[in-house]
Amino acid sequence: MTAQVPITAAAETGGGVWRFPADRPLRLDSGATLAPLEIAYNTYGRLNAERSNAVLVCHALTGDQHMASTHPVTGKPGWWDLYVGPGRPLDPERHFIICSNVVGGCMGTTGPASIDPATGQPYGLKFPVITIADMVRAQAMLIEALGIETLFAAVGGSMGGMQVLQWAADYPEKLFSAVCIAAAARHSAQNIAFHEVGRQAIMADPNWRGGAYLAAGVRPDKGLAVARMAAHITYLSESALQRKFGRELQRDGLSWGFDADFQVESYLRHQGASFVDRFDANSYLYITRALDYFDLAGQFDGVLAQAFRSARNVKFCVLSFSSDWLYPTSESRDIVRALNGAGCRASFAEIVTDKGHDAFFLDEPQLDQTLRGFLAAQAQARGLS
Amino acid sequence: MTAQVPITAAAETGGGVWRFPADRPLRLDSGATLAPLEIAYNTYGRLNAERSNAVLVCHALTGDQHMASTHPVTGKPGWWDLYVGPGRPLDPERHFIICSNVVGGCMGTTGPASIDPATGQPYGLKFPVITIADMVRAQAMLIEALGIETLFAAVGGSMGGMQVLQWAADYPEKLFSAVCIAAAARHSAQNIAFHEVGRQAIMADPNWRGGAYLAAGVRPDKGLAVARMAAHITYLSESALQRKFGRELQRDGLSWGFDADFQVESYLRHQGASFVDRFDANSYLYITRALDYFDLAGQFDGVLAQAFRSARNVKFCVLSFSSDWLYPTSESRDIVRALNGAGCRASFAEIVTDKGHDAFFLDEPQLDQTLRGFLAAQAQARGLS
Repeated sequence: MTAQVPITAAAETGGGVWRFPADRPLRLDSGATLAPLEIAYNTYGRLNAERSNAVLVCHALTGDQHMASTHPVTGKPGWWDLYVGPGRPLDPERHFIICSNVVGGCMGTTGPASIDPATGQPYGLKFPVITIADMVRAQAMLIEALGIETLFAAVGGSMGGMQVLQWAADYPEKLFSAVCIAAAARHSAQNIAFHEVGRQAIMADPNWRGGAYLAAGVRPDKGLAVARMAAHITYLSESALQRKFGRELQRDGLSWGFDADFQVESYLRHQGASFVDRFDANSYLYITRALDYFDLAGQFDGVLAQAFRSARNVKFCVLSFSSDWLYPTSESRDIVRALNGAGCRASFAEIVTDKGHDAFFLDEPQLDQTLRGFLAAQAQARGLS
Repeated sequence: MTAQVPITAAAETGGGVWRFPADRPLRLDSGATLAPLEIAYNTYGRLNAERSNAVLVCHALTGDQHMASTHPVTGKPGWWDLYVGPGRPLDPERHFIICSNVVGGCMGTTGPASIDPATGQPYGLKFPVITIADMVRAQAMLIEALGIETLFAAVGGSMGGMQVLQWAADYPEKLFSAVCIAAAARHSAQNIAFHEVGRQAIMADPNWRGGAYLAAGVRPDKGLAVARMAAHITYLSESALQRKFGRELQRDGLSWGFDADFQVESYLRHQGASFVDRFDANSYLYITRALDYFDLAGQFDGVLAQAFRSARNVKFCVLSFSSDWLYPTSESRDIVRALNGAGCRASFAEIVTDKGHDAFFLDEPQLDQTLRGFLAAQAQARGLS
């Protein structure tokens, strides 16, 4: 593994970018391969002598490796700052916490904006379609490169939770425990429908140019912003939107025009406008595609329990949010049912909140307590101090 | 009223286009006036000698006057063909049924695609912002022009239901009964949010050209199609989408690309592509704006019951669908509570169906029976044969 060397290193935290050379390609579900492969990752804490305290956190659709450190583009705190840090459920004093940007992403891991060695130009639509299993396969390469045989835990919410399930299916022997938050074992028709709206919005932007916008020096920002706006609604519950914004106006009185009269309009426009500064439109296409293709049971003859048949030694924690309508509690129950069917040990909690899918980023005492409790019990079982 | 003459007449049904001359302007809530005003309408059946059997049906966001007759653009049956016709709940043998295209629409009534007399060009964004109350005021002008003093019933679903509520607030003396289906007394934050996504999609299309696309000989079809796709998801329930499409593929196997792999993608694309043939993008902006501005309680010092204080003689029927998440049952309950608070007689039913908001266009035996029962009771009370 001499060729696998960190080529950069983040200052504030550990991590950097691992480069896997051309003779260590990533094999993809599509049949294609990806090489060279670079994986950008952050680490928090230290690997103990027994190499038994590593936690992999898998990020969601628009997340990245900057989980608990200042984001280099936005300057904002990490997306899981509330749950990762000293005294928090994932604690760098006790855990060696790893978060890597997914394959297809745009924050340093090889994705459609990376240079295609065959052409010397950004891949664009020549980038191969990737899957959740491909993301996990790349993570497994990184974990191995870091000298870690077994993860104490794989943890993730939303698309991160899907990666956790895929880890349990593909690498159960490398997993001590698994936490799957606000996820589903497959994308529903409505999930696919919302993503398709986003993709069509991007592709409708003339600046998209068939995916070759980087070479042309333009960006389909308007289309990407619309995609983000549509998706963002699905991350919030109806009641949270109503409580937060209701019909409150931006100014005194209506504009009688098409300015943002309502605060919720202004909020959504801001969500769209700020998103395009930190995200690549083609990455959005590829990662939403990976999500839509995700159907864990489909990989195992349509029987979800079969996906977990080798994971009987993994301890699972499955969490959902009562007001999440993107991946509702019923989806988590299906996962738990399959885990039970496979003979796995799974604890399950539906956390009562009106904050919708995004609750998993937000200050949710029940989430905090459940994560702490589950991880403490697993630490004891694992013999972590 | 000599100047108010029908200038065209539909062949298959009654109706045509009423033209109100410049000296009979439509006064708008914004303070602006609209003149000349043309109202395109269809009628089914005959007004009886007592002029007591007129039913006004108010259409939804993308509906039009072709409620029970072949659509001139699409060639498809009318949007409420299932409920309007011989032997159906609204029966031309017994009722004189009127449906007019709303102000701001694009099927013959004055809207942003109409010629602005001040410039000789299509209004575009010079068209004044209109409200649900403006739509109703225009309908009242038409009803008066047709020589009708009192409507036997005003009936409508979705935005049509909001017009019905506005009728009860503004013209209770002209209303014998009112049927409000799958509507709300105000647009919620989530309702506004989805509409804002659609508007931004249209405005992001470079062919929109600040609303002046008609003069430029182009159309923002891509943006309008994306707007329709996003909205269309809100018209269907999650379970209906899952039942209808699930994860069914278009072809054998995945494309590993961005073609429509899933049937739900293909369906949505079709919804978007076919919509642009029959609808004007600026009309979509204006009518969604009217919906977002709608807040009936807000017109009456924040007390919804006050809106109905003069409607004690009107008999109301309020209906909702159990799986409608656009205007959920709770919104209808709020309406009923306000009607009760105002001392109005209101019957209410939640129709159990998994078809979501669009159930009101679809074959729903409970809807059919409830409409029949309510209208039969009112016909008896009204002394209709």
